Amino acid sequence: MSNLKSKNKSQQSQLVQVVSHSIVAFGELWEASLRDLLYQAMEQATERALETQQIDSESEIEAVYVANMAAGSFSDQRHLSALASQFFEHQPPAFRLEAACASGGAALLAATDSLYAERYKTVLVVGVEKMTDVSPSVATQVLATAADMQNENGSTFPGLYALFAQAHMEKYGTTREQLSAVAVKNHLYAVDNPYAQYRKKITFEQVDKSALVADPLRLLDCSPITDGAAAVVLQRVSNSVQRRNTMQSSKKAVFITGQGHAQDTLDVASRRNVTQLQATVKAGEQAYSQAGVSPQDIEVAEVHDCFTIAEILAAEDLGFYEKGAAGPAVEAAAKQLLKGEMEMKLNAPIINFSGGLKACGHPVGATGVKQIAYIAELLESGKFKTGLTHNVGGSGATAIVHILQTDFENN
Amino acid sequence: MSNLKSKNKSQQSQLVQVVSHSIVAFGELWEASLRDLLYQAMEQATERALETQQIDSESEIEAVYVANMAAGSFSDQRHLSALASQFFEHQPPAFRLEAACASGGAALLAATDSLYAERYKTVLVVGVEKMTDVSPSVATQVLATAADMQNENGSTFPGLYALFAQAHMEKYGTTREQLSAVAVKNHLYAVDNPYAQYRKKITFEQVDKSALVADPLRLLDCSPITDGAAAVVLQRVSNSVQRRNTMQSSKKAVFITGQGHAQDTLDVASRRNVTQLQATVKAGEQAYSQAGVSPQDIEVAEVHDCFTIAEILAAEDLGFYEKGAAGPAVEAAAKQLLKGEMEMKLNAPIINFSGGLKACGHPVGATGVKQIAYIAELLESGKFKTGLTHNVGGSGATAIVHILQTDFENN
Repeated sequence: MSNLKSKNKSQQSQLVQVVSHSIVAFGELWEASLRDLLYQAMEQATERALETQQIDSESEIEAVYVANMAAGSFSDQRHLSALASQFFEHQPPAFRLEAACASGGAALLAATDSLYAERYKTVLVVGVEKMTDVSPSVATQVLATAADMQNENGSTFPGLYALFAQAHMEKYGTTREQLSAVAVKNHLYAVDNPYAQYRKKITFEQVDKSALVADPLRLLDCSPITDGAAAVVLQRVSNSVQRRNTMQSSKKAVFITGQGHAQDTLDVASRRNVTQLQATVKAGEQAYSQAGVSPQDIEVAEVHDCFTIAEILAAEDLGFYEKGAAGPAVEAAAKQLLKGEMEMKLNAPIINFSGGLKACGHPVGATGVKQIAYIAELLESGKFKTGLTHNVGGSGATAIVHILQTDFENN
Repeated sequence: MSNLKSKNKSQQSQLVQVVSHSIVAFGELWEASLRDLLYQAMEQATERALETQQIDSESEIEAVYVANMAAGSFSDQRHLSALASQFFEHQPPAFRLEAACASGGAALLAATDSLYAERYKTVLVVGVEKMTDVSPSVATQVLATAADMQNENGSTFPGLYALFAQAHMEKYGTTREQLSAVAVKNHLYAVDNPYAQYRKKITFEQVDKSALVADPLRLLDCSPITDGAAAVVLQRVSNSVQRRNTMQSSKKAVFITGQGHAQDTLDVASRRNVTQLQATVKAGEQAYSQAGVSPQDIEVAEVHDCFTIAEILAAEDLGFYEKGAAGPAVEAAAKQLLKGEMEMKLNAPIINFSGGLKACGHPVGATGVKQIAYIAELLESGKFKTGLTHNVGGSGATAIVHILQTDFENN
């Protein structure tokens, strides 16, 4: 199906495999500290890698990459790299990356670079955020530091995404019901996800009648404040080795076959277009090109629905729908799901089957890693072959896209 | 002189060259914002790379790595990756790394990985910190988040390094005069450094009579709170190409030939030895091994003297002196310098010729990048051939060592 033509020399001969993953159940985890969450995710991913014999000893994990946005403010703790390293007796070198809510995607990129560079063979990437130890208003202020605090000071993220929603509604006729449909659909999906913060159905009416936060966005249009952590173990393998692994295991081997990383201006006012996130478009194109797939090949996607409008933007900007077509599609999908019918494929992937940021929860530094862990779990089952993750920082100043595949053909 | 035997395949065939560098003068820069400092360092390094024809266009800078510890608290601004990216019209992908005061070293490691991975050919690494917009007591609290805030809560860094000083004095007979000598020497060096925050001599008596901060450390044993930024442009070159460059330019080409990165427990209480930073020892050994050099080959070193005792520890833990011998050596060196005599070589490198963190200043996220920029400038002149940088996070939980060389022989 796919080819690796556009990969560089190193990536042609070597692949990065997701050999283990973990997600610590997301929620308001008052009984768990930042460190507890960090270590739980690391422990689960490490134990699973040992159990499945992907590694023979903990010490094979040669480096740790921590994704975290704001533990310095949420938990009065920086230097999480050192904190993560000491979880292992062999104290491997460790890094912490921050790119606001795209910290997870950034950590994955840096980690895969270390593998392609042949600095390491096996590394662990862990994302963590402990957000509920401060009040919601403090959390909102801390999150606002991901925006341009010189030129957008006073803006909050609901306010910035409300601007996107207004512009999108005006230009494409996107409706209140279509926004609500994103929340309804994602809450329905979350019911069956044991990791999700909100495992309960909500109705169109509940979204429509929830408190207005920033017109047109209401409380149930917004992803929640969440504690959580997730981890993946990544291993560099040669093409020949991976074919053997795939044959031997009952689970499918999952590989990162495409990556994209693009930026836009930190402030929204400097952009020419507010009905499309240009960074998402660029990052998507890079990832598709590297993996040698098209949007139509994607079967499952975890996209960055920090607000309902953000999922509609992502579904269009990643090429799953024409501009203006994602709203009607999600409305149709949500109504089918409410009737107990499975979402039809409609030539587009199943989006945010985990419940997304909206219902699974959004512990900001953990989200990008959880997306990879979740898609890897879906692909391992053999039910899907090609998945995508889409992680956004701020109001679209950073977008990072990963494509994961199993059983793909190498040239 | 050196060999590259211990390098991996990718590093044998390719080298990372420091093709440009900049340091924004360190100090209490009240007229400059975080963004001003970030952009000044980026602009100077980019312009210099263009002027020296190391790049033909800004757009050749394919990615940006930002080192910053705590702009989220010092300047209410996170997501500095996006802020840095938009400095360039082509908005390259960008990362931010944090490893407390070793953020600069961490960013350099991630950046070089992206080059060895062949993801990019030319990248810019910029370190920045704007610390004087908060009060000194707030700054001290923010810096304390680099320690273990669960197990060392209430400790400050002067307090933790005071413990190291007391233990070192007791075990090795290190004296008050020897601590003072570090400050006296580094202030003397800083007089001639246009980038330095404190370009003035101080006396042994002044150090000894300065306010007691944490016994035995006094005010003039401590590095200051500083605003500043520094940048380097790194380029991946093949061995054959670099030989040509070296021949053509009037300045020597400078390469990163060794890197080391090691961790220790975040809290000091969990360590077995407090008279030696184990992470420094390990990181040094890794870097020497990769570069194929020994401590005796190092001619100039910028080491992490956040406190006077830290320089003494570093000089010993990096193998320049036996344990207990660095104190007497720095006292002799400082006294020679005070008499107007140049420091004798004594089979050890010139340490902290920039003035170090102590007198050049310590804008925490910028320090690790400034060390590389400064050593690269010294080596370019042709006066020295082999230099080392040593960047520490927290009380030694992270140590990152780089070896830079010019005119070294490749097998």
